[in-house]
This record gives sequence, C-alpha cells and structure tokens, in this order.
Amino acid sequence: MNEQAILHIPDSRYCFPVSEKEVILRLRVDKRDPLDEVWVIYESKYVIQMRQLSGEMERKYEDRLFAWYEVKLKLEDVRLSYIFRLKARGEELYYSEDGLSDAYDFSLAYFNFFQLPYINSADIHREVPWMESAVFYEIFVERFCRGLQDKDDTYVNMEWGEKPHPKSFAGGDLPGIIRKLDYLKGLGINALYLTPVFQSVSNHKYDISDYANIDSHFGSNEDFGRLVREAHIRGIRVVLDAVFNHCSENLAQFQDVVRRGKESPYFHWFIIRGERPEKEPLNYEVFSFCDYMPKFNTSNPQVQEFLLDIGVSWIERYDIDGWRLDVSDEVSHDFWRLFRKRVKAVKADCAVIGENWHDANPFLGGDQYDSIMNYAFTKACLDYYAFGAFDAEQFAWKLNGLLMRNTDQVNRMMMNLLDSHDTDRFYTWVGCDRDRLLSAVAVMVMFVGAPCLYYGTEILLEGGYDPDNRRCFDWEESHWDRYCMEKIKDLLALRKEKAVQTGSIRLYSKNELFVLKRFLKEEELTLYCNRTKETRTIAAEGEAIVGNGYAEGCLEAEGFVVLRRRHSRRPGICAEASQIPMTAEQN
Amino acid sequence: MNEQAILHIPDSRYCFPVSEKEVILRLRVDKRDPLDEVWVIYESKYVIQMRQLSGEMERKYEDRLFAWYEVKLKLEDVRLSYIFRLKARGEELYYSEDGLSDAYDFSLAYFNFFQLPYINSADIHREVPWMESAVFYEIFVERFCRGLQDKDDTYVNMEWGEKPHPKSFAGGDLPGIIRKLDYLKGLGINALYLTPVFQSVSNHKYDISDYANIDSHFGSNEDFGRLVREAHIRGIRVVLDAVFNHCSENLAQFQDVVRRGKESPYFHWFIIRGERPEKEPLNYEVFSFCDYMPKFNTSNPQVQEFLLDIGVSWIERYDIDGWRLDVSDEVSHDFWRLFRKRVKAVKADCAVIGENWHDANPFLGGDQYDSIMNYAFTKACLDYYAFGAFDAEQFAWKLNGLLMRNTDQVNRMMMNLLDSHDTDRFYTWVGCDRDRLLSAVAVMVMFVGAPCLYYGTEILLEGGYDPDNRRCFDWEESHWDRYCMEKIKDLLALRKEKAVQTGSIRLYSKNELFVLKRFLKEEELTLYCNRTKETRTIAAEGEAIVGNGYAEGCLEAEGFVVLRRRHSRRPGICAEASQIPMTAEQN
Repeated sequence: MNEQAILHIPDSRYCFPVSEKEVILRLRVDKRDPLDEVWVIYESKYVIQMRQLSGEMERKYEDRLFAWYEVKLKLEDVRLSYIFRLKARGEELYYSEDGLSDAYDFSLAYFNFFQLPYINSADIHREVPWMESAVFYEIFVERFCRGLQDKDDTYVNMEWGEKPHPKSFAGGDLPGIIRKLDYLKGLGINALYLTPVFQSVSNHKYDISDYANIDSHFGSNEDFGRLVREAHIRGIRVVLDAVFNHCSENLAQFQDVVRRGKESPYFHWFIIRGERPEKEPLNYEVFSFCDYMPKFNTSNPQVQEFLLDIGVSWIERYDIDGWRLDVSDEVSHDFWRLFRKRVKAVKADCAVIGENWHDANPFLGGDQYDSIMNYAFTKACLDYYAFGAFDAEQFAWKLNGLLMRNTDQVNRMMMNLLDSHDTDRFYTWVGCDRDRLLSAVAVMVMFVGAPCLYYGTEILLEGGYDPDNRRCFDWEESHWDRYCMEKIKDLLALRKEKAVQTGSIRLYSKNELFVLKRFLKEEELTLYCNRTKETRTIAAEGEAIVGNGYAEGCLEAEGFVVLRRRHSRRPGICAEASQIPMTAEQN
Repeated sequence: MNEQAILHIPDSRYCFPVSEKEVILRLRVDKRDPLDEVWVIYESKYVIQMRQLSGEMERKYEDRLFAWYEVKLKLEDVRLSYIFRLKARGEELYYSEDGLSDAYDFSLAYFNFFQLPYINSADIHREVPWMESAVFYEIFVERFCRGLQDKDDTYVNMEWGEKPHPKSFAGGDLPGIIRKLDYLKGLGINALYLTPVFQSVSNHKYDISDYANIDSHFGSNEDFGRLVREAHIRGIRVVLDAVFNHCSENLAQFQDVVRRGKESPYFHWFIIRGERPEKEPLNYEVFSFCDYMPKFNTSNPQVQEFLLDIGVSWIERYDIDGWRLDVSDEVSHDFWRLFRKRVKAVKADCAVIGENWHDANPFLGGDQYDSIMNYAFTKACLDYYAFGAFDAEQFAWKLNGLLMRNTDQVNRMMMNLLDSHDTDRFYTWVGCDRDRLLSAVAVMVMFVGAPCLYYGTEILLEGGYDPDNRRCFDWEESHWDRYCMEKIKDLLALRKEKAVQTGSIRLYSKNELFVLKRFLKEEELTLYCNRTKETRTIAAEGEAIVGNGYAEGCLEAEGFVVLRRRHSRRPGICAEASQIPMTAEQN
C-alpha cells in the first residue's frame, strides 16, 4: 500500500452532504494498489463506539496517478462519524485521522475518527434546478445580430462579416438577439450567457461606466426587459456578465476621484497609492495592465453595497436568471459570500457562475459560486482534439481528475465549454476539422454539467485569438453547413435524457477509443470517440442515437457515436445510480 | 519519487497570505524521497510567462509519512502564480497543477500553474494581537472560589472540597474569581476562559435559560462587569463560553413552543418533527441525547439574530475579550461566518475560539473562528506522557503533523491544553507523576499557540472523568506543592519570550529525547524532554533557564530543561525567522 497516496478530507469535496440525510464520501488511493474492497464503517457520533454500520465503496474514477472510491450514505442521524476499511491481498487495514493501522479499537474511536459533525441545512450546497437540463449559448452581443435597423449607427465602423479589429463596431444588439430566439430554441438552447450589456465605450463592454443602464448601442433597458420576457416565454434563461472586479475609468465615482483625489468620498472605492490616481507611473490597482479599468476595492463595505445592489436590482427589475462573474478569482471570497446570500435571497434559483480558469475549489464550497466556466475541461479537450497531448486514456484520466476537484452538485452545475470570447475558437484550434469539433461537442454534452456553445459554433464560424474569435455571425443560411448544424441539434437534444442530466458517469478508454458512459437506473448511454487513424469496431450492443462516421458497429477515424442500452433491472437489487455494477467492458 | 505523495493545494493551509504582500507556501512530499532541493518558481500572473523569480523552500516539518517544505515569499504584486522545482539525485523535476514533469514550458504556464489569484485584504486572516502572548487559565466557575459569603446558599449541597457528584453545588462564583485575580496574575496568567456564567439550573450551566443575565448563584451582572474591569486592570483578558448550539428547555422561547406547538412564533427556532416537542420518543434535535438541551435551528435568521445579539451585547456592555464556542462543530459554517463578522465589527481583537475536537480546517479559513481548543494536541501529549503510545520521535511527528493542519496565523492563536472540564485531569492521567506533568506543561508553553492551564493544575488537583474533573480548588496553601507551583510559574514566564510568541519551531527527537526548538533572529530556546528510563546527557550548549531534574548537561528520566542560546548574526544574511539554517543536531 502506498499509504502516502491515500487522501480523505472531511467536510470537503471528499465528504459532502447532498441533502439533510445523504452524504457522499470519497477516498483517494494510489491506483496501483491491489485493493480488493474498500468499505466505510460509520455511525452517529454518539453511537459508533458501540455499533457500526458499513457500506462498500465503489471504484469509480481513475486518473494518471490515483483511483477514487465513492459511496453515497443515507443517514438516520445528522452527525456522521466514520473510518475506512481496506482489504488488500486478504489483509484488512483501517484508515482513520491517524492514518493506516492493522487493527482498530472502536471504543477509542472518538480520538481519531473522521466526521461530518452535523449536517446543517444552511451549509448544504443546493443545486439550481434548471441547471440540471441547461444548454447554454454564449453570445458576444456586438457580433451576433443587429435588430435595430434605424438606430443612430454612426459608431458602427465595420461591415457585418468583415474581420474585426480590437476597436471594431459591427452593430449587434439586444433586439437582434430577440429576433433569433426562435432560431436558438430550434437549436436546442435553453439558456443564454450574454457578455456585458451595460453602458461602456468598448465593443466588449468589460469596462462599464454605468451599471444601471443598457448600452445605447445595444438598445434600451426596455429592450432588455423584452429580451428576458421573450426568452422566458420560450423556456430560455438569461445569464448576465457581472463585471465586479473592475469598472471603466469613466465610472462617475472614479471620475470624482480623478478630480478630487483624497477629497472624494469615493477615494477608498479603489486601491490607490498616493493622493490621486496617476497613469504614469500607474499608482492604482487595475485589471491586468489596463489603466482604463480600475479595480474596485471590494473589501470596502460601500463598494460591496454598490455592487450587491446591482446584482440584486437586475434580478428584481428584469428577472434575469443568473450572473457569470468576470475575473471572479481576483475578487475576495468575502465579497462573493455576501453576493451569493443577496442574490439567492431575491431569486433562490439564480445561477452564480464564476470565471476561474484554475481549480476553483476554495470558491465552490456552497458559500460562494455554484460553479465556474470549466476552462480546465476546455484544456483537456484541446489536449485530446487539438494539441495531440492526450491519447484516449489520458483524456479519460484528466476528465476523471477534474470531476474529483469538486462536489457532485458543483459538477452538475459546471458550465462546460470548448471555447469562448477569451479563447481561440475550438473549430479553428482543431484545424477546421468538422468531425473533431462534433466529437468534442458530443463529449461536452455527455459530460457532467451544462454544455455551453459559443455563438456560431453550429455554423462552423472560425476565429483565432481576440479579436478574431469575435467575428460576426453569418446569417446567410446558404453559407451554413447543414449537416453540422443538424448533428449539433441532435447532440444538444441528448441533454434531455435523464441519464445525461443526473446519471452516474464512467470515463475510460477501450481499444484506444475514448468512452464516456452515463447511466441512471436501467438506462445507459455510451459515447465512443475514435481519434485513432483507423476505423475501429465497437462490440457493445445498443441502439445508435447520434453519430458521425458510424455504421454497423464500425466507427471511422474522428467519428463518434452514442449508443443507448436498457439494462433489465435485476430483482432484489436496489439499482441506485452509484451502485450499478460496472459493465464487463470496463478495464 | 513518490509522486502520489506530493500535495499542494492553492488558497489553503498550503498557500495562504499572512499580509497583503506576504504569502507562505508549503509542499508536502514523501519523507523518504531523496530530495536535494525544493524551489518555488513564481511571479505575477501576467509576468510569469516571460520572467520568473525563485525561492528555495526549507524542509521544516516531518511526520510519520511526510515532509513539508515551506517558504515565505515577499511579493511585489498581489497576483501570485507559481510552480515547484524539485531536485532529486541531480535530476530536476517540475510540479504544477498537472503533476510532475521533466521539463516545463513557461510560455504555456497559464494552463497549469498554481495561483493565489489576488490577495484581497478582506480574505487575510488577521491575528488577534493579544493572543500572541496569551496564557489562558480555564475556570469551572462553580468550583474555583466562593466570594459571596452572604448570598442565599440554600442551593449549595456539598462541602467545599468534597468529591462532586453530577448535581453537586459547592458555591463558587464570580466575586470569588475577582478575589483571586492577583493570585492568577502572580502565576503568570493573562487570560481567563470561564465556563458558562449565564442563568441555568445546572452546576456547569451549559443549559442556558437566559443569555442576558449572570446566573444568580454566580453573582449579578454588576459582579461580572466588576470582574472584567478588575481583570483588565491587571492585564487579564476574559473569554466567555458561547453555548449557541443548544439551550435549556427552560429558555422562554422553547417553553412557548412546548405550550403552543406549531402556533408558537418560536416553533422554527428548533428542529422538531411533529406538532410539538415530545420527549418519548424524542422528536426534536438536541445536544447529544440530552432532551433538556434542545438544539437551536441556527439556519433560521431569527435565531441567528438572537444569538448574534448575545455575541455582540456582552462585548458592548461588558467589554469581554473573546468567545469560546461550545459544540461549535455542530453549528453551521454559515452561522459562524455571520458571528465572526458581527463580533469583530464591535471589537476587532475579540478572540473566537471553537470547540472542535478534530481537524477543524474547514472552520479555520479566516472566515469563521480564529482557532480552536487544541484537543489534538492534548491527545498527542497523552499518547506520549500517559498512554505510552508514542516515543519521542512519534510525538514530534504528530505535533509536526498538527501544525500542518492549519495556517501559521491559526497555529499561533491555538488554545493548547492538557485537560479541561471535558477530560480527565492530565495529572491523574499520568498516574499523578509530577515530573511528567511539568514536562508536558513545558511542551504546552513552548509549542506554537497559547497555553491554557486548567484551574488547579498548579496545585496538582486530581480528578478523573466528569464530574471528578470538576473538584473544588483547594485554597489551603499548606496543602500546595510549592515546588510544582514555582516551576509552573517559571514555565508560564517563558511565554514572554519573543521566540516563544512568534519564533519558528522545529520538533524532532535526538538520542530518544524529545526536542522542541523555537528561534527568532539570534535567539534560540530549546526544550529537551526525557521520557526514557535513564538519565541522558545533552551536548547542546546554552544557559538552562527552566528545568526539572537537570544539572550540568544531564537530564534525568522524566525531566525537562529549556536552554537559551544566542547565535551570532552572520553578516550579509537576512536572519528572517523562517530562514535560519537548521543547527547541526537536527536529524
């Protein structure tokens, strides 16, 4: 046994309640260890000395180094104490807060058992119900569609469809999005994530000068209200971009500081070294190196109130369904805790989605965000589909590892994406290989969490890094790749499957194919992706429900297929998702 | 290399800011790995692609399985990105979010570096300044000293000094404590932790029926005000017991629920299954199995306000210095976050000390408590001094491991104890061996954090488990062990040493002796404890400043000694505490 590899952390992603009486436990071990069985031995804190229950844990996830065993316990009491029992080559070992031991004396358990001392309702991370079936579509508003034909468009400085420059304006707006809601619904979209829509001089509008009003290029506040109403009528949610890390230098409060320096009541809204903000040399905190984007001092209660009020008022006034939090990892935990409380108080199912590109676990304990834009997923897909850094096995390992970064709830609310306004377009990154794009979309849809399609993916819009990734949507339908669009519709429709929404997942490779299996009760959906250079056969039974390059058990290079299979429920066995036995084909 | 053993978690006890521009990083490795050097390679997030700084990490802590390397970085920017470089047998390896690799391409660092995205002032766990030199004394109020001689004492049902029963009353009170403040100050005490003092029918008063008033057996609210004033005059802080997990069934709000059931406006203050609370069978949540101690529903905002008001009002009205939080691990994180904010807002240096017997890291991120009663330290001392479970090396390993559970700030605010009203007395547990007790007190004082002496330890008060651990203090001075008391005074005086307050620590064994070294700049204090059966020599130089069974380099069995040594400061080397090189004697 590699004792040093064993990891369990109570009250963390390795031990978390999913309801008042249900807890998921995970134990990490060295994947090479010859474990026959892993059990959790548990009871209420006050009982475990005398009596213990036990539950077998299932080996569910495996990455390059580790394997994770998992079990979901249904508890009688809300005070859980536990240790683990490992069986390796016939030998039994116990794992407690004090590490591995050959024997365990339960009469002294109080000193070193693990525990979840009490499951308090207030600490349970509740899932946003609509996220379970969400299919997001990210719109860079300036480039999606122009609806207002008779607005003052003297600011527009490029033809629709030209290659954009950093300061280009093409004229996209909110009425344009409203016009395309039926199109989006037809695609299978049920949630929009819009890049910022508030008053700002830039085309991206991440430098906001007025958080109370829609940018006039994009329309009016009334237009926005209409967008939300029309979206809701179609069952489409609307998530806005909360740029709370920084603002535009044009924000009235910052301008007051520019004018009055320390005399301004807003001086401490920002982080300034000196009497007044200076650009040469820069003496105030900004986003990145952008002197026109001063950073808010979110440790200041006045700033907190100002931003919280924005967070709440767009929900109260316009009924938005969530906030995506720009540069959220540079804002304090303290602020996001306040933010969550305030927005959830006015709309309990408001989604709170951070922008953290790295492991965001410290923000995802249920007290701050619900989830993040899953750029680690993006990177894994790039490593497999674009960079050649991963084979199928490594891809599966990486995705398993990502799942183990967070709780089940967080995983199910993740916004999984292949690309965004902050990356090259995935299609361009894979060398404009349509098959690879479709295969990656299949993975995104079948993975745990909500897929997010970047606008134009369905028409194979190309684009390198910013600003090239922000090209105008081409509404000339004769230019569209109909095959691709239909395949994407078919894939997004998979998100209606209960097994895809809430089922268990297994990720592995077989015969050099990448395999992603979702299952719930008798239902099982399996995705196979072939990134080898040759056609491979798939022995598994099942009905093919979506595929590309698949026929009669043969999957072409760069092809994918999703097979559906129904297991007959074996009598007498509780077929809880997490306890369905692995099929024989798992390696 | 045992790659599976390597652990680093950003924004955790393994990576935390201690000020706006200082961060401590820790890396855990398999202690058997042949590492020659470990470095952190770091820079601001926006710079690391082009340019990197580096800092060598020091191997500082070692437990049974792991070694921890640590470094304190002084930053120019508040956005830290980093990876680690390990040198083993001449080979260089890099450790990033993606694990170990032979080479590292910094141009792609953004994808897998570790990071502390931004050090926000609001997220820094600030130390309570007075905790740095605190010497606590826990008083079980009913048994310490009776000051009010003419009170109605018909409730007193035992002679002072008799063996207590669970329902005994001996008559101790607050005026009794006031009378003994000079005695306590003489001992070297500068902080009191009092078990509950509010209205309650029990002798321990952990079942409170009125949180606004001092129990009449203990005196009046005026007496309490006088106690705090008199303590403060003598430089002694006062920490009260916050019993917020549960109350007495006599609390007016619970009684209203008993009478009116669901009609009561307080019904949801508790967690009741059914129409009204019933004891047979018990249908409401309680502390442990005590039906007379209903648990508060701290997820209810009304209950939160009720308890927060108590937390604040005793500070505002009586100027108390801190709260010890009873059964704190069973109360929600959510509540403690609110609690911390509210009490720190009225008294920034109010200490918040939880009662968690196990690893409490999820409560110690700076958003909830400052520290806990360190019962894991208690257990380690028992394993070494009482149970024979540890030799010196294992004791050092365990203490090193405990330090690695939390940040430096938390460690320095820990309330370290050998015993309390909830354990057997340590002196009794070690078979009334005075030498062992003194040796353990020396460890407690020299360890990182604030020592807490349970009342009567200094007069060798005996006692097994509750209620025997709550005997009356024997004020007959002729019964006292003067030698023991003087040694304890000498030991507590060590807490005035800057090296003991804020110095670095090294814990190890040498020649089967337990060695605890504290050092700060040129100053070095070293404690040696001998739990072998024979006298051992100590080769180290230095002046003996406190000891028992020590003379001229010879330390008797069960003896201890603290040696002081001053290093000459080497020119040109910044003698920052954490960077003083290890002395040659460390193994």
